Amino acid sequence: MYKNQNWFKNIILTANIAEDSGIRGCIIFKPYGLEIWENIKKNLDYLLKETGHKNFYFPLLILKSLLKKEYNHIKGFAKECAIVTHSRLKLKKNQLILEEESRLKNELIIRPTSEAIIWDSFKRWIISYRDLPILLNQWSNTIRWEMRPRFFLRNSEFFLQEGHTAHSTKTEAIRHCKKILNLYKYLIEDILSIPVIKGRKTNLEKFAGAKTTYCLEAIMPDGKALQIATSHFLGKNFSRSFNVKYINKKGIYKHVWGTSWGISTRLIGAVILTHSDKYGLIIPPKIAPIQVVIIPIYNQTDSLKILEKIVSKLIIFLKKNKITFRYDNRKNYRPGWKFNEYDIQGIPIRLTIGKKEIEKGNLEVFRRDTRKRKKYKIINLKKKIMILLKKIQNNLLKKAVKKQKDLIRKVDNYQDFKQIIKTKGGIVSSHWDGSTTIEKKIKKETSASIICIPSKSYMKKKNTKNVNPINTNPINTNPINTNPINTNPINKKNGRCIYSNNSSKQRVFFAKSY
Amino acid sequence: MYKNQNWFKNIILTANIAEDSGIRGCIIFKPYGLEIWENIKKNLDYLLKETGHKNFYFPLLILKSLLKKEYNHIKGFAKECAIVTHSRLKLKKNQLILEEESRLKNELIIRPTSEAIIWDSFKRWIISYRDLPILLNQWSNTIRWEMRPRFFLRNSEFFLQEGHTAHSTKTEAIRHCKKILNLYKYLIEDILSIPVIKGRKTNLEKFAGAKTTYCLEAIMPDGKALQIATSHFLGKNFSRSFNVKYINKKGIYKHVWGTSWGISTRLIGAVILTHSDKYGLIIPPKIAPIQVVIIPIYNQTDSLKILEKIVSKLIIFLKKNKITFRYDNRKNYRPGWKFNEYDIQGIPIRLTIGKKEIEKGNLEVFRRDTRKRKKYKIINLKKKIMILLKKIQNNLLKKAVKKQKDLIRKVDNYQDFKQIIKTKGGIVSSHWDGSTTIEKKIKKETSASIICIPSKSYMKKKNTKNVNPINTNPINTNPINTNPINTNPINKKNGRCIYSNNSSKQRVFFAKSY
Repeated sequence: MYKNQNWFKNIILTANIAEDSGIRGCIIFKPYGLEIWENIKKNLDYLLKETGHKNFYFPLLILKSLLKKEYNHIKGFAKECAIVTHSRLKLKKNQLILEEESRLKNELIIRPTSEAIIWDSFKRWIISYRDLPILLNQWSNTIRWEMRPRFFLRNSEFFLQEGHTAHSTKTEAIRHCKKILNLYKYLIEDILSIPVIKGRKTNLEKFAGAKTTYCLEAIMPDGKALQIATSHFLGKNFSRSFNVKYINKKGIYKHVWGTSWGISTRLIGAVILTHSDKYGLIIPPKIAPIQVVIIPIYNQTDSLKILEKIVSKLIIFLKKNKITFRYDNRKNYRPGWKFNEYDIQGIPIRLTIGKKEIEKGNLEVFRRDTRKRKKYKIINLKKKIMILLKKIQNNLLKKAVKKQKDLIRKVDNYQDFKQIIKTKGGIVSSHWDGSTTIEKKIKKETSASIICIPSKSYMKKKNTKNVNPINTNPINTNPINTNPINTNPINKKNGRCIYSNNSSKQRVFFAKSY
Repeated sequence: MYKNQNWFKNIILTANIAEDSGIRGCIIFKPYGLEIWENIKKNLDYLLKETGHKNFYFPLLILKSLLKKEYNHIKGFAKECAIVTHSRLKLKKNQLILEEESRLKNELIIRPTSEAIIWDSFKRWIISYRDLPILLNQWSNTIRWEMRPRFFLRNSEFFLQEGHTAHSTKTEAIRHCKKILNLYKYLIEDILSIPVIKGRKTNLEKFAGAKTTYCLEAIMPDGKALQIATSHFLGKNFSRSFNVKYINKKGIYKHVWGTSWGISTRLIGAVILTHSDKYGLIIPPKIAPIQVVIIPIYNQTDSLKILEKIVSKLIIFLKKNKITFRYDNRKNYRPGWKFNEYDIQGIPIRLTIGKKEIEKGNLEVFRRDTRKRKKYKIINLKKKIMILLKKIQNNLLKKAVKKQKDLIRKVDNYQDFKQIIKTKGGIVSSHWDGSTTIEKKIKKETSASIICIPSKSYMKKKNTKNVNPINTNPINTNPINTNPINTNPINKKNGRCIYSNNSSKQRVFFAKSY
């Protein structure tokens, strides 16, 4: 098994994605890692704007008194806050110390999430039904103090996309939550090639301050589950705590209904875990900072010149079609060294171009996902590249779906349950009676939690009619139509709780989680 | 005089650019304000990438021990730091208090700028001459505790673009500093339509930790100067403090030479101050979130339908040419109300389209900068819009240049100097003997500091040959060729210091500053 913790860290370092900063849980994003995030961001930002959301930016620092207003919210985040208490330093005997007089009367918290400050603003902005719905989004850096930090999966500082909305009716708010969840599903499956399971969290596992947390879960190849996106129906929890009311058409004051939802740089961790092999990463073409790398093979500078004539035509084509590329004609590195580098970084397509092949009108094309080389006629190459990028994108999803299927197991006996969780990992689909006490007992005894109560159609591809896949991909290639994923339908039949033997309405998914 | 402090705040609020957050010095960016910043960012990011820079992201929090390493650097920033001291809160008797056991051994500082953490990384990354130069850039949020916060001009939290480079030779580092300064000049004059003065700071005013600070200064219509961009030659200050050495070709260890440079959301403040009139803002077309607004004038829904046929053709054209627009057919607002709203927001072009005009094949075009209305034939309209956007962009710069010229005065007598600074403001060009003591005395007596020692060609348009103006503007319109600004050549002749009467080699620029 190559996918252990060291492997994961090692691939991030060697592929030049990120590195440790010396501050626990805080990483340095290298250009390659940052561009992957920027590409994810571009795609989602487009989808959010197309569905009526606008970007705001709220302050990094939140007053402690604001954070306190929603009781469950602060209870959930109190143990992972970075707290600012002073505003000045001074040098004393060559030591840099806090200036005690600069102690703040009101401590400030670096946002662990922005519900508090946003609901404080909703209070000012919402007066009547005409102001609703408010659909806002924020891209930001966020801090949650992590006890066991891990690259991307558990960073103390990470990039967060967080949406916040306010609605006049409950139905509209819940519908919005679900709409966003489907939009995330589209992003993660069609752009990141990671299959997800759709469902909702139990009361124990839901977001601090939410009524219901809808979620997408992904299973990593090592058998651990990863919460990859969440969409929270906040009910009136925040509107009551922050006293946000609107006047309805009849002139009556009503509390608004809220939602919040987010994804983060955790997605980069999911991409790495899902799409790597023993040679390194494989980046899905739709988010690849470099989709095609071109490497000339030459002995003398003369032959390089000949090759570069062909290359320059190719580059014009790539630019025109907005395919991101790198032309690597560095002299101080040998081709084999370069091949290895791009294997690790997971560049989807590698073209090598040598004098002899050119004379025959050929070019060698290497597909990173299948690791197959093939010679193509130069005249056919252009079309081929477009097709190949699509194929790679699809193939990565297909492979991931296959791995996922093998990692979901129905279990009806608690001894088996414990055994499987311990030895095989993956997701165990079992009956549960709905009691939080039982849920906690199972978690304590097995380390497996209920990652989600799967929705009926938890793996079916959602209708993404509202989304125009051509435009949603501002960075590259043509739309990719992945096949619907339709495996492992959930058993909705009644049964008996695996722990208590009480009656149960449906199976839920247990797993150890990241 | 409409451009006082209240006016400034008021325009930001009414144009829906930003608002107060309740935390001193921290603002909420509204979508319109954020988009202006995003447009500035897109343009500069493109320019930086084209000149070989790569984007990194370093942690928000910096170890106090790192910050301490460069003495002058920390001396300069010690009094404006947000300091994180604890990582957990707890609820006690309904109060939310710090958990004392979570006190950090090493306090963390929210970056006031990132030199310290970046030079700590350079130490790991730089080994030999082959690793040089390193050209990196970062887009981030940054905190400097402001005693007298002001929207955009002095926010405690602001968005910062900061570049950091390391070079093997002094010449190369200085050349890079100057190259970046010219790139900023291009951004600010050609994209933001704000004329700038190029020069360098005195030792008293330079960046904490720099050898030389090159700067661009803009004069706001109220006569105050605004430091709008800086580029620092760091010499070996940081490479010595952080022990960053490379092995040169002869195998000898040498300290590297450094630069750092930046611009910030302060630019938004400069745009607002420079390009507003009594009706509101005027956003330069190249950074306008909405370049064209289309308002239908109709009485009945029937006539709206007829108008919308014309409008839809127009919209296709605007999209094709990447002109950003809004079609405002809201029924609950009257045209006059809308006109006023777009006047305040400074949308460059307003098109009104009524049934009667359409029958004559006409459309009314309103130019926000000149406030002139004109009827155009619909068939000529498309070309006209492109030309008009260029004209508006140029005109805004021309107007600003004119205002600037009127605000620079040569003065050779200290009594006059004091009088002019006090009553008229603006920039006073006077001789100075180079002594920091005198500089401080003048500052104390008049509140005017030396904003810059202007370079020989301080107002001349720099050669921007390396820059392709078509591509540098990813967001809109054709390249705009502004006329070279060539006014007020500096008097390089020797003279006598206005304060000490000692000999002086050149005039310098004094002003009260933001």
